[in-house]
Amino acid sequence: MTTRASSHRLLTEAQEAEIRESREAESRTRRCSVPALEEILYEPIPVLDHGFIRVIDYMGDDAAIVQSARVSYGKGTKQTRGDAGLINYLMRHRHTTPFEMCEIKFHVKLPIFVARQWIRHRTANVNEYSARYSVLDKEFYIPAPEHLAAQSASNRQGRGEILRGDDAARVLDLLRDDAARCYEHYEVMLNERHDGSVIDEGAAGLARELARMNLPLNTYTQWYWKCDLHNLLHFVSLRADPHAQYEIRAYADAILETLKRWVPVTTEAFTNHVMDGVQFSGAALGVVRRLVAGETPAQSDSGLSKREWDELMAALGRTG
Amino acid sequence: MTTRASSHRLLTEAQEAEIRESREAESRTRRCSVPALEEILYEPIPVLDHGFIRVIDYMGDDAAIVQSARVSYGKGTKQTRGDAGLINYLMRHRHTTPFEMCEIKFHVKLPIFVARQWIRHRTANVNEYSARYSVLDKEFYIPAPEHLAAQSASNRQGRGEILRGDDAARVLDLLRDDAARCYEHYEVMLNERHDGSVIDEGAAGLARELARMNLPLNTYTQWYWKCDLHNLLHFVSLRADPHAQYEIRAYADAILETLKRWVPVTTEAFTNHVMDGVQFSGAALGVVRRLVAGETPAQSDSGLSKREWDELMAALGRTG
Amino acid sequence: MTTRASSHRLLTEAQEAEIRESREAESRTRRCSVPALEEILYEPIPVLDHGFIRVIDYMGDDAAIVQSARVSYGKGTKQTRGDAGLINYLMRHRHTTPFEMCEIKFHVKLPIFVARQWIRHRTANVNEYSARYSVLDKEFYIPAPEHLAAQSASNRQGRGEILRGDDAARVLDLLRDDAARCYEHYEVMLNERHDGSVIDEGAAGLARELARMNLPLNTYTQWYWKCDLHNLLHFVSLRADPHAQYEIRAYADAILETLKRWVPVTTEAFTNHVMDGVQFSGAALGVVRRLVAGETPAQSDSGLSKREWDELMAALGRTG
Amino acid sequence: MTTRASSHRLLTEAQEAEIRESREAESRTRRCSVPALEEILYEPIPVLDHGFIRVIDYMGDDAAIVQSARVSYGKGTKQTRGDAGLINYLMRHRHTTPFEMCEIKFHVKLPIFVARQWIRHRTANVNEYSARYSVLDKEFYIPAPEHLAAQSASNRQGRGEILRGDDAARVLDLLRDDAARCYEHYEVMLNERHDGSVIDEGAAGLARELARMNLPLNTYTQWYWKCDLHNLLHFVSLRADPHAQYEIRAYADAILETLKRWVPVTTEAFTNHVMDGVQFSGAALGVVRRLVAGETPAQSDSGLSKREWDELMAALGRTG
Repeated sequence: MTTRASSHRLLTEAQEAEIRESREAESRTRRCSVPALEEILYEPIPVLDHGFIRVIDYMGDDAAIVQSARVSYGKGTKQTRGDAGLINYLMRHRHTTPFEMCEIKFHVKLPIFVARQWIRHRTANVNEYSARYSVLDKEFYIPAPEHLAAQSASNRQGRGEILRGDDAARVLDLLRDDAARCYEHYEVMLNERHDGSVIDEGAAGLARELARMNLPLNTYTQWYWKCDLHNLLHFVSLRADPHAQYEIRAYADAILETLKRWVPVTTEAFTNHVMDGVQFSGAALGVVRRLVAGETPAQSDSGLSKREWDELMAALGRTG
Repeated sequence: MTTRASSHRLLTEAQEAEIRESREAESRTRRCSVPALEEILYEPIPVLDHGFIRVIDYMGDDAAIVQSARVSYGKGTKQTRGDAGLINYLMRHRHTTPFEMCEIKFHVKLPIFVARQWIRHRTANVNEYSARYSVLDKEFYIPAPEHLAAQSASNRQGRGEILRGDDAARVLDLLRDDAARCYEHYEVMLNERHDGSVIDEGAAGLARELARMNLPLNTYTQWYWKCDLHNLLHFVSLRADPHAQYEIRAYADAILETLKRWVPVTTEAFTNHVMDGVQFSGAALGVVRRLVAGETPAQSDSGLSKREWDELMAALGRTG
Repeated sequence: MTTRASSHRLLTEAQEAEIRESREAESRTRRCSVPALEEILYEPIPVLDHGFIRVIDYMGDDAAIVQSARVSYGKGTKQTRGDAGLINYLMRHRHTTPFEMCEIKFHVKLPIFVARQWIRHRTANVNEYSARYSVLDKEFYIPAPEHLAAQSASNRQGRGEILRGDDAARVLDLLRDDAARCYEHYEVMLNERHDGSVIDEGAAGLARELARMNLPLNTYTQWYWKCDLHNLLHFVSLRADPHAQYEIRAYADAILETLKRWVPVTTEAFTNHVMDGVQFSGAALGVVRRLVAGETPAQSDSGLSKREWDELMAALGRTG
Repeated sequence: MTTRASSHRLLTEAQEAEIRESREAESRTRRCSVPALEEILYEPIPVLDHGFIRVIDYMGDDAAIVQSARVSYGKGTKQTRGDAGLINYLMRHRHTTPFEMCEIKFHVKLPIFVARQWIRHRTANVNEYSARYSVLDKEFYIPAPEHLAAQSASNRQGRGEILRGDDAARVLDLLRDDAARCYEHYEVMLNERHDGSVIDEGAAGLARELARMNLPLNTYTQWYWKCDLHNLLHFVSLRADPHAQYEIRAYADAILETLKRWVPVTTEAFTNHVMDGVQFSGAALGVVRRLVAGETPAQSDSGLSKREWDELMAALGRTG
């Protein structure tokens, strides 16, 4: 999933060495372990142009979810239902607390505008790189050409066609130039170059907590982020959704791949019930019932708005 | 909804007087007000045999939700969609934060075993009557005959037939007698009668925080409970559900009635999209699509378990 | 800390076997491990007469806290301060987020009235034994004679002298008899004995979710409880405090012992700064300053109430 | 606190009109009202150069806190302690739940780098202006000369001397120029001017959600933010602290002024116990005791680090 080649560019030599060391230092534990996740532990998985996610630690597995659920059911548990059946049952009936019994910790490098969306998920723990304390790295997100989309005409919160030719070139030039210039002035204000050297020995540098305000929102930051599995699935359901902005979706997709290694049974149930699932309103269900009964209801008498009707028909595969 | 007659039995004379006073003391405010909710402000709404809910305070209304949503949309808002349309849109697309902008505070009297389920909803604020500090009232929940259900044979977490005749009488006698005896011994251990008088001047009374452990789980307690509207709707969706225990459902139903007064547009959207709505898994949606296309899929090749299939057919009105 | 002898009485044979199996099944991991905590992993630590706590899983250690903090400080970290120094600094300056990066999961058996206090700590995950689904065990908390305290005369929320002789005997008899009778009637209502056998083949049993309401608050329940280290320290600071009820303090004390094994550096900093620490108000600090300067301030002109003054003098070791 | 003159510059004419209308539309309510807060309801209180806070709604007052606390104490309350005494007691003993019973909602306009610190307070509700959906305003925070501080030499996370002359002028020029240029290019990428007009009819505009990444961190955003009083006091205690960055402290100070109008008794207790208060570790308390007893302890045998010792001596007014 991640190659030395690609990860090489993401990290400094010192970080590479630290990861190698962490990966080599094995110990014995009585806790449950997940070999497929251990395999990629600490390794950066590239996301966007300079970002990554790395699994730093984890607690629990599919069996731990089942074990927690069986505590609730006590002596009453019929052991006939297997683990996969029970996990499916829990997912289907929104019995969310057993999923909270697993926890995972990521190291994430991400553009600040993505971090601003991500942090809205409040039930998580986070330690972010402090730009009050330290100087930010000279790294900015510049979209790949295939993600340089025009504003959608129909959806104010979405993307339309991909920009081409001069339109695309102009945007990329502006993004690159402004980022470079803002960072250069950041250094000038700090009176300190990126390598730590002083620019003008006779001048005072602006406080880091102030100078950073000159940096654009595509500057990369990083954090440790820890979350329980239930809330992580909720994060993925919202952020791996087609309505989410592509840049955060790229992270959610990478997390989903990680989940397949960690809790494969849960991830499959989640994919079926949530990601591939659909919520119908009472009115929409009424239409579905009539269709199933062979009737041909019309939007006008369905109680659905035009937009709801269209979405329902699309979900039912009846477009066009 | 609540009558003097019924509320009279729920409250002491002092409490009645306090409520009267609160209701008479009107003031002017620049905040938004909801006349239909003001009408029942402070009034106890009876639930179960000795319980109630009372709205003590509230913040916001349907218009406040719309206003908060429009802050997000900024200049981009097409004002063409009316308030009801916007609220429907928010509910349908799980844009939950505007609903968090409303808040309500209840005074609730409820049996301890109900309180134990209720408190599991963590995103709320609560101040409970302290049985370390004060003596609990002599009030116990005794189910009405029509709620005295046998254990369900098919659902380990549910109720079956209503008990009748001797079976019912025996249960009611046991519940009443044990509650009365436990409370009497609670007083003996405290060496203090319910009216505050000492039982035996020569003896020492057990600490309240210890004596209370003799009381059964149907003893009534009370608390102030404050919650934002988004989390309150989540509470109602889980606790007014047929799978919830009847006793907490009775409270959730009373809250739902209150919501109709407070935020009628939101409550209607919630009823349609959540209470009357249904979640289909990807596999179930596949079956629905085939049915709508006129095919006749079988459970065996549907990817659904027998139970999921039955639930789907029931949802589609195809039982039997 | 726990002996086979004492744990033997806490668990069924099946549970003993399961713990033995879990403890023997070691695996290799790249995650950090804490040998001192591994040593007691899964083992029940007895609390009260029938309760226990068991560590089921954990994530992180003292080094993980330091590592998370260093992410925040980035390149700006002076590595001169050692780990203990940094942890002390974080604790002293309320930089709480690095402590949130550690997580621990307990299996706890506890009386219901203790569970009711415990659950008030909302930032945690919990899976409780369901008395809707299963039949509760016949186990009740009966205080040891040395904890059978009278109501405090001075503190409405506290305990006074220990009851002696007949007073004590009478209380113990009442608690034991009422618990036994309530449980017996619980079985009668369920129409099912503790061992699962039916009492009266011709009669219907009351639903479990209803029958349980006859049980007293000293009945034992159990749950899996998971919490991050920051919130766990907050729990301990409130519940291992002399103002907390003895019964929950017994659990908080057992947790504190566990913390010494898991995160010894953090636990020492916590003990110094929080458990042994004191918060002085601005007015109290004014008095302290005058005392240190050799003045002899009086309560009357201190701005402190009599009670605050007394507490301050006690904290300064100037009582009497 | 806010003048028409100063608020005039903060808002558009349409917003001014909306506020006027809101302020004039009074209604009657049975809820508690706070005249001193009603006086400034909806009015913007200026913060920094283009920011503000406005109180939009509130629930509860000092009396509501007392009422909630009395629910906990039930019949056991000695009514002898007045409201102020009870609130002081709650504050001193960290009985935080009654303060959670009050709620307040603000409309805040603030620079993005301040918003990034602010959002770390998770127990609150927020609706932010969406730069995916709408075009951000052309407004940037440029520090006033007296806040243009150099990096502190002693504290990596703090400010030192104020920049003067050329150093200051250079920084202000860079900040102003970069903000202006980035915003201009934001418009170019959007292919849309700030007034909504299209720049080049033949070209496609970049999606808003992408174009915004070119804007610097001192760009202003705005949100509705709702919080209970307990968590708001925690926010103020951390953000009105001298260790907080000046720019967020300016907002915390404005909130503190608002609190004096809303809950004056609570604010006074909070100021005394928390803002003016001090936390001493066990080791520090040992030193204080020895000083009070007339001894002259030395840092070397105090168990305190040099820095802790210095902080203690400063708190005791024994510097130099």
